[in-house]
Amino acid sequence: MKKRLFTPGPTPIPESVMLAMAEPIIHHRNPEFVEVLKSVNENLRYLFQTKNPVLTLTSSGTGAMEASVANLLSPGDKAIFVNLGKFGERWGEIMKAYGVEPVEIKVEWGTAPSTQIVLDTLKRNPGVKAVFLTQSETSTGVFTNIKEIAAAVHKEYDIAVVVDGITSVGCHEMRFDEWGLDVVVTGSQKGLMIPPGLAFVAVSDRAKKMIETSKLPKFYFSLKKALKSYANDDTPFTPAITLAIGLEKALRMIREETVEHIWFHHKVLSEAVRNGSKAIGLKLFGSPASHAVTAVNVPEGVEYSKFNKLLKQKYGITTAGGQEHLKGKIFRVSHLGYYDEVDIVGVVAALEWTLHDLDFKFEPGSGVTAVQKTFAEYTKETADAPRLEAVK
Amino acid sequence: MKKRLFTPGPTPIPESVMLAMAEPIIHHRNPEFVEVLKSVNENLRYLFQTKNPVLTLTSSGTGAMEASVANLLSPGDKAIFVNLGKFGERWGEIMKAYGVEPVEIKVEWGTAPSTQIVLDTLKRNPGVKAVFLTQSETSTGVFTNIKEIAAAVHKEYDIAVVVDGITSVGCHEMRFDEWGLDVVVTGSQKGLMIPPGLAFVAVSDRAKKMIETSKLPKFYFSLKKALKSYANDDTPFTPAITLAIGLEKALRMIREETVEHIWFHHKVLSEAVRNGSKAIGLKLFGSPASHAVTAVNVPEGVEYSKFNKLLKQKYGITTAGGQEHLKGKIFRVSHLGYYDEVDIVGVVAALEWTLHDLDFKFEPGSGVTAVQKTFAEYTKETADAPRLEAVK
Repeated sequence: MKKRLFTPGPTPIPESVMLAMAEPIIHHRNPEFVEVLKSVNENLRYLFQTKNPVLTLTSSGTGAMEASVANLLSPGDKAIFVNLGKFGERWGEIMKAYGVEPVEIKVEWGTAPSTQIVLDTLKRNPGVKAVFLTQSETSTGVFTNIKEIAAAVHKEYDIAVVVDGITSVGCHEMRFDEWGLDVVVTGSQKGLMIPPGLAFVAVSDRAKKMIETSKLPKFYFSLKKALKSYANDDTPFTPAITLAIGLEKALRMIREETVEHIWFHHKVLSEAVRNGSKAIGLKLFGSPASHAVTAVNVPEGVEYSKFNKLLKQKYGITTAGGQEHLKGKIFRVSHLGYYDEVDIVGVVAALEWTLHDLDFKFEPGSGVTAVQKTFAEYTKETADAPRLEAVK
Repeated sequence: MKKRLFTPGPTPIPESVMLAMAEPIIHHRNPEFVEVLKSVNENLRYLFQTKNPVLTLTSSGTGAMEASVANLLSPGDKAIFVNLGKFGERWGEIMKAYGVEPVEIKVEWGTAPSTQIVLDTLKRNPGVKAVFLTQSETSTGVFTNIKEIAAAVHKEYDIAVVVDGITSVGCHEMRFDEWGLDVVVTGSQKGLMIPPGLAFVAVSDRAKKMIETSKLPKFYFSLKKALKSYANDDTPFTPAITLAIGLEKALRMIREETVEHIWFHHKVLSEAVRNGSKAIGLKLFGSPASHAVTAVNVPEGVEYSKFNKLLKQKYGITTAGGQEHLKGKIFRVSHLGYYDEVDIVGVVAALEWTLHDLDFKFEPGSGVTAVQKTFAEYTKETADAPRLEAVK
């Protein structure tokens, strides 16, 4: 059976990228590999819209989150984080593990923090060194307006704004330099369309200064070491070579399509999934909606585990369930990375067939019709735009 | 031109393993992937000759070294490490980064520590919590007798013996349980024959107790978290999925060949390279010799950079140079992982041709003849043994 992943990481990998990674391995100190890293570094800067370094680590995205905490702060420092879901919460867990004093902004899971709540928290907590945000909270499918928050914070405070962009980079608009962000992290198995194993950290001048004075222990995740190697398109430790080779190809595809079109493409696909779900009679979970993943309430009378099993057994489709207290209550359909309109019509059709099998009442065809209508509104724009193509 | 890697990591990857990693990616919480990890975990225990957990991390080998320090020790603890090369030295660098007090045993690079020097250092430094060793020092091609040292240490002290097995696991005899080792770490791009990006940590009961009480900060590399997930054949963070899929296949190849034969095979191949080099008139660097990598002095009158360039340009062969103060003075030929007798005859022939081009005087054919003679001595044994074969 054809396997179809609709999970927010790993996401599907273009066939040409998979095959590039299957070629005979080269040594990471060979000139050929230096060329690979040079191209990767240049195109990561393009993707992050920055002239600053975007450092590559061999780890999952969590490693890059930990690197941000361990390299910017010192023992006893205070930092704000927003607990808006499992991944926002993780910032606080990392801080605690490192003896940083976390100031928690807790918002109901399924909502996003307002700019005002961040400013109020800063006012009540003098001496905070950094604010840690999550642009797309993967566990709830919720989008945070980091552009507005970063601007408001930097208007009044000379502190770092650190962003988990793990499911938003290569999906949502993010302009590192123009928006004045200090650190943005992401992972390889998301908008970058390659397997998991690499993580990325963009650092501003302010972040670089903090890295110079940070007193928390680190070695493998030392960004000082990473910055030094980066200057020569190198890495301090053996990188995941085959993944970097796949990444080089994937980033060239992204650059060819243009990042602006990729942002637009994810907006359209996510809107189609939301409209399709609503037309079937499903209720969306959380807002404002992330363009990476759509969280949908499991409808009354439907058992999540049966729904999930049917989707997988009959159509080869894997979606993601809810995490923590949302387990069994929501399911999440990802449209992050290497997807197109045909994939989206397909997954909404499979939702219809599966819900029909489970005796959920709705008008057959209503979901895919809503998807079609959404795409029709954008036809001219999408038809004119270049699409993800295998790069020679 | 055919690419031929003779570097001590990355090492060549069996074609069947490369292609397994190029199949459509699966999600790490899918039952299919749980089966992959179950098989990986079982066969890692076999490879390490242990009933204890062998934890899989997504990082380079250095990440596993850091995990050993950060999870066993607490601030201010004293630990012994042996500086016998660049990688032995690294243990001390990690300790310093974490506020552990390193007690250095410095031996000349190219030699190994005696058991006596370890015991003497322990006697002079009461309160030491652990001894950190390197079974095969990659930078010098030197082997340390960890079996003897571990036995001597444990006879007198209830402390941990931690081993960097990065270029020795799957090459040198190593019996984790029988030898009473507490931690052995390795990396994926070495004896395991897959690309870099995964690292492994075997932990004894003594190590597990130390993990419980360690006070150094960690999150991504938390072995407590890793042990908890391991109990369900899971990992705490998204693993490098494609590499784990390749690993599953590579470990089944290892099991089919048997680990005893792999140890024997590396002994024979390394002996052939040493005999071939000596017959050409080259001087070996360092002893006792590791079976993973042979370090050879660059002969007088030969410029390393020219030698290296010719080997690569004419024969597609990449060997490794010297590191730190050994740069330009030695070269290192690896025979770790997926190599056979034909590869070894080939690399020694290429050494002959290249040295001949550089006007080094020797009897042409003397190197390959010595290689042949070495193999001839073992013919019966090697002919009878099963060999690395692609596993269905």
